[in-house]
Order: sequence, then structure tokens, then C-alpha cells
Amino acid sequence: MTQTMKDMMLDMGKAAKAAAYSLANVSTEQKNMALLAAARSLRADKATILAANKKDMTSAKERGLDGAMLDRLLLDDQRIEGIAASLVAIAELPDPVGDVMAQWDRPNGLNISRVRVPLGVIGIIYESRPNVTSDAGALCLKSGNAAILRGGSESAKSSRAIHACLTQGLAEAGLSADCIQLIPTQDRSAVGELLGLAGYVDIIVPRGGKSLIERVQNDSRVPVMAHLDGVCHVYVDKDADLEKALAITLNAKMRRTGVCGAAETLLIDEAALNSHLPAIIDALKISGCELRGDKKIIPLDESIIPANGEDWDTEYLEAILSLKTVDGVDGAIQHIARHGSHHTDCIITENTETAEKFLCEVDSAIVMHNSSTQFADGGEFGMGAEIGISTGKIHARGPVGLEQLTSYKYQVRGNGQTRP
Amino acid sequence: MTQTMKDMMLDMGKAAKAAAYSLANVSTEQKNMALLAAARSLRADKATILAANKKDMTSAKERGLDGAMLDRLLLDDQRIEGIAASLVAIAELPDPVGDVMAQWDRPNGLNISRVRVPLGVIGIIYESRPNVTSDAGALCLKSGNAAILRGGSESAKSSRAIHACLTQGLAEAGLSADCIQLIPTQDRSAVGELLGLAGYVDIIVPRGGKSLIERVQNDSRVPVMAHLDGVCHVYVDKDADLEKALAITLNAKMRRTGVCGAAETLLIDEAALNSHLPAIIDALKISGCELRGDKKIIPLDESIIPANGEDWDTEYLEAILSLKTVDGVDGAIQHIARHGSHHTDCIITENTETAEKFLCEVDSAIVMHNSSTQFADGGEFGMGAEIGISTGKIHARGPVGLEQLTSYKYQVRGNGQTRP
Repeated sequence: MTQTMKDMMLDMGKAAKAAAYSLANVSTEQKNMALLAAARSLRADKATILAANKKDMTSAKERGLDGAMLDRLLLDDQRIEGIAASLVAIAELPDPVGDVMAQWDRPNGLNISRVRVPLGVIGIIYESRPNVTSDAGALCLKSGNAAILRGGSESAKSSRAIHACLTQGLAEAGLSADCIQLIPTQDRSAVGELLGLAGYVDIIVPRGGKSLIERVQNDSRVPVMAHLDGVCHVYVDKDADLEKALAITLNAKMRRTGVCGAAETLLIDEAALNSHLPAIIDALKISGCELRGDKKIIPLDESIIPANGEDWDTEYLEAILSLKTVDGVDGAIQHIARHGSHHTDCIITENTETAEKFLCEVDSAIVMHNSSTQFADGGEFGMGAEIGISTGKIHARGPVGLEQLTSYKYQVRGNGQTRP
Repeated sequence: MTQTMKDMMLDMGKAAKAAAYSLANVSTEQKNMALLAAARSLRADKATILAANKKDMTSAKERGLDGAMLDRLLLDDQRIEGIAASLVAIAELPDPVGDVMAQWDRPNGLNISRVRVPLGVIGIIYESRPNVTSDAGALCLKSGNAAILRGGSESAKSSRAIHACLTQGLAEAGLSADCIQLIPTQDRSAVGELLGLAGYVDIIVPRGGKSLIERVQNDSRVPVMAHLDGVCHVYVDKDADLEKALAITLNAKMRRTGVCGAAETLLIDEAALNSHLPAIIDALKISGCELRGDKKIIPLDESIIPANGEDWDTEYLEAILSLKTVDGVDGAIQHIARHGSHHTDCIITENTETAEKFLCEVDSAIVMHNSSTQFADGGEFGMGAEIGISTGKIHARGPVGLEQLTSYKYQVRGNGQTRP
């Protein structure tokens, strides 16, 4: 049985590699044709997809999944339309493949250009959101990469129905079905095999909860692009504009509490404890946020719960915010160095020098000045759709969009040059 | 004992991480000061280094190392001067850290810039060449990265003497000695521990023979930048200019046979078998190259040895060339797809369309038209010194110079923006 799974995954890896090799030189038009045909197929097959999703929902309820998970799993007319619209949007994005990133001449007359090429084969491991099947598959295709998708067991039937539409799109464009493969079994050992396919799979992108990311990062023999945590900070400096501090803190924490760019800790300059913090506390309280503060903050409001050591390292993903007093921007930078997750951190100040220090010294994928951490998103950055956010420093950092799913090659054009 | 090694390597990893954190914001001037002081120290301590090298050479001879290895190990006045000159040259290269790679405004007024930052901690594992201690340490320092160096046992004393000069340079510039650490033991288990330091070491660069690279790629928990093989091809098309074909083939194979960019296989268009190949064979024979050909080529010259299946996958690194007949550019592309190592491959033709097809479809780090594969080198590309060549597609491909030792962060500057 294990041997069978190994063989099956190896076959998928080989098929993906062969598909990737052809796909690298497919025209933008042909890739877009596949995406648009897949969108048409999704719209036409709504009933089939909804029926599959209903079965997934029934099993999920029987297994007692909570409301948030059920909501992530649920598809309806509007959501399917949204998935189809995303395919169209991805077709409209510029194709990064073939872009000349740089070009120069050498004194000996050699012309060198660095040209974008696809990475090859991308493995995507995700949980309950069935739309990832389509979004991730489409981003890989548009960037010229073959995809091997592994969806969560809860959404297996929905994902299969959506995948069938992608396959239909590929067929209509004359592309191999191996360009976007969905692992056809829910056997957990398939993930282990996928993570071991070094030489066939070029990169793994896990999307989901912390335990999934942790497992993938620990077990993978293939490089991984991901973020484990999003313990994002907002630092309110003594030179902060109070209105901006109020608006940004509230937005960074409460706009959506479940996204990775949501703020989890508010760092307050000790010199701003009395000038700024009381109004911020009031605003957060009114919005329904639970506050956990350090010793200097507790006296400011009776509703504040004492924070313990764990709070500084916790990604709540809920309407909870920890509040910590720090000694100016240096204290904020030190706290983030110790407790941050290299995701997104923001300073609020009117002092440009202080802001630049923060932007330089905080070692995170995204560092911000006077703006909400919830902008941590490829779409908000103008990159189009993203497949995720990476907090690692290798290959791509921050939002992972089409460009980040590429590598490059050097094309050297000569006229008979030999090396002395 | 194993526990002690684990602890020692963990301590080195932690020290490197702390050093990298400070180094990320050190000025170019201060880094250059350290490099120039190290160069002075190398020149001043020549006698000490030569004495250490003499001991390494004596042990190496006792252990029966061959002539090529002894030559790689040997230092003399001129070679030490060369190492010092490299340090000065690296000081003169532009500092990539802080470069704004791209910058744009969003409709909501957010200004986003993508800024180069160091990778963090780089582990370098190398063999007998003691100059790598200095070159690799200096490239890491200049790009703002902390280095953990692991030299070969044969060159241990030489490396230690050179490392002492780097440490002296760091001290004179007021930088921590932890910026460039040399593993102080030759115990092989240290390498295993280094490869397991994910979370402390950001990338591993192995430099040396195939068995070293293979071990590192198989065992590392940290991403690896390297090339395993350099099975480079020259394809002579029917539309090749004969003079160029002669000069380039000879140079690509024979200029230096031991470098990774040396050609190992000549692919000849079947339509050029009689028009081009005989003259090329003559030139290679005269230069002392052994030729191994396929069935169609053997009749052309009595000196040609029949190639067997293994020849197409062999990196000789010697004056041996395999010769294979292919069916035009498509045959060449197919052969390279099957037998190439994604390193450097060249087409010789006067037909631009054929050349462009080759440059697009051959999936190698460096693809060339009418120029010698021996240009596969960071210096020849105008990138300054290189730490190696990567054939992987993740992070960096081709020559790995200062820029390729960096990552980036996004700096977002706002004026109170919140996300709707």
C-alpha cells in the first residue's frame, strides 16, 4: 500500500515535470485561453459543484466542524461566480514569463540578459477553502508552472468538481491535463510523499493553519514558501498623530481579526502612555476588543487583563490585542526582534527619522509607516492575486504573486567570443 | 561527545544570527574597512600563513593526495597576494544592501518600495582551496551576511591562519568576530550539525567535488545553492560559421578542462556532419583531446573511441569530449533536456531564428549563442566575484554574486491609510 502511494506520487511528479517542460514555452494566449475556458466551465457547471459541496458540508457537519470552518468550506452561487471571476482576473494579469529583467553588454561584446522563466513544478497543500484549488492552479498555470494540488479532506468533493473545470479549460486550450493535477486520494501519506519529491517538485506552498505549515516546514525535502505566524505589531510612537494612531490601530486589529496581517500586539512608547493610549483603549473597547496589558498599562483601564509572557508570542486571530510598553523606537525594534514573526509591522509617528529607523531595522517581510498592517496582501500591493505570503528570506519574501513563482535564466548572445 | 558537537554548532548558529542582525544595518564604509584591514593583515602575516600552509602540505603529501589536490592546497607569496587583492576588489564592489529594486505608488497614496536586505546567515562548506576562506567570508560580509565557514581537513591550518586575518579586519572595523566564524574542528559530524541548523542558518553553499555537493543536497535541512554537475554542451548547427565553431568548441573544451563551465559533449547537427565536423575533430585532436563518438561519427576519424551510454551523462573535467549526432536544433534541445545538468549550454549558428529557439527552450541557468561556455563565471558576467554557480531555480540561478546573497523587504509609507 505504501509502495503504491509512493509510485502514484512519483508518477504524478514525473507527469508534472514533463508538463512543466512543455508549459515553459507555451504562449500567454494559450494559457489565457485555458483560464477563460475554465471560468466558463465553472459557470456552466455550477449545479454539479454545488451538489459536490453539499456532500462536503454534510460530512463536515457530521464530523462536528465549527462555524468558521464550515463557512470557509461553503460554496454558493455567488462564491462560485467569484472563483470564475478570479480566473478571468488572472488571465488579465501580465504574463511574467519571458520578461527581460536586466540586460547589459560586456566589453568583449557579449550581450547578457536575465530573462524570467517558470520555476517548474509547484506543490500546493491547503485545507478547507475549495477556491484555493482554482486560484492556486490558475496562478501556477499563468506563470508557466505545473501544479500538484492537495486539498483538505473536508473539501475533497468540492475541489474535485472545481478541478474538473480546470481540466476542461486545459483541454479546450490544447494543454495537457498534467499541467494542473489534483491528488486523487485523501490518504495522509500522499502529503509525505509529495514533500519528498525533490527533483520533481521545485517548491511547496502550504496554505492553512499553523499545524499544517509546521508539518510541511519540518518534513519537506523540497523548499517551502510560507508563513508560520503573523504576530504583527503596531508601534505607537510619542510623536504619533493621535487620529492616525486611533484609525490605524482599530483597522489593523479589528477590520478582520482572522487574517495573517491583523495586528496582535500594540507597542506603546512609554512617553505616549498618557497622551495616546487612553483614547486608543477606549476605541478598542467600544469595538469589542479584549485587551491584555503589561503592568504599566493595567492601571489605565479596569477592563484590561494582565498579559502573561505567552501573550507576546501569540497570534490570536481573534478580537484580542496585547498591549506592551516599550522604551521608544529602540524598545519597539527590540521587542519585535524577539517576538515578531517577520511578517508585517508598523510604526505610527510623525517623526520621519524615527520612522526610517523602524523601516530599516525591523527585519520583517513588510514594514510600514502610518498605515494599517491589514494592507499586507498581494492585491493591495498591486501585484494581482497572490498564492500566499512568505516570511522566509529565500527566493521570495512578502506576497507571492506571479513574479514570485518564477526563476530566471541568462541568455548570452555572442559573435564568436572565446575566453582568453 | 555528539551532544557537545550539537551544542557547539548551535552556539555558533546563535552567535551568527545575532551578528547577522547587527550586520544588516552596518554601513558600507564599515564593512569595507573590515575587508581592507583584513587584506593588510593577510599581507603582513604572510610568513605565518605560509608556515601553516607548509604543515598542511606535509600532511597532505603523507596522506598521498594527488598532484591536482596538492596544487589547489598550495599557497605561495603570489597566491596570498592574490587573496589579499580579492579582498580589496570585493571592498570596491557596490554594496547591494539598501538598493531600491522597485518603487511604486498605489491609488490610495501608499508608497511601496522593495529594498534589498541581507539573507542572514550563510554556511559555506568547501574542500581544499584555502582561498575560499577569505573569498567566501568577504562576499558574505560585504552583502551584510554572517558566515559560518567549514573548510576541508587538508587545508585546516591554512584556513585558520587566513581566518585569523579576517577576524583581525573585523576587529579593526569594530565588528563582531561572529560575523565570520570558522568551525574550529575537523570532526565530520560538525557538517551534519551545520546542515541541521534550520532557523539559524538561512542558506548553505557547498563548494567542491560531486560527493560533497551530493551529501549536502541530500542531508541539508537548510536550503542549498549549488551545482552538482556541469555537463555543458556545445551544439554545432548546420548553419554554423565554421571558424566560430572551431574556435568556440576548442575554447569551451580545452581552455581549462577542470572548470564547471567546460564543455563535455559536442552535439553536431546531422546536416553538418561532413561540412563542419572533420575540421573540428582535427583541431581537437591537435590540441590533445580524446574524442568519444557515436556510430555516425566514428567513421570520420580512426582515433575516435566509441562512446557508451554513460558518456552522455559524464562530466569528464579532463581533455575528453563526447560527440553526438542530433537531428537539428530540436534534437539538440531534446538531448540536453535528457542529459544536461541545467548549467551552461551553447548553440553555434548564423541562423538567428534557430538560435532564439535554443535560447528559449533549453532549460539551463546559462544559455549561449556563438560564445564559449567557459564564460560561465560571475566575473565574466560583470557581477564581480562569485561564491559559486547555482543550477537550481530557487532564489538564485547561475553565478551567485553579492546580489544573489540578498533577500528583500517591502517598505510601505503611508499617511494614515486604513484598509476599507
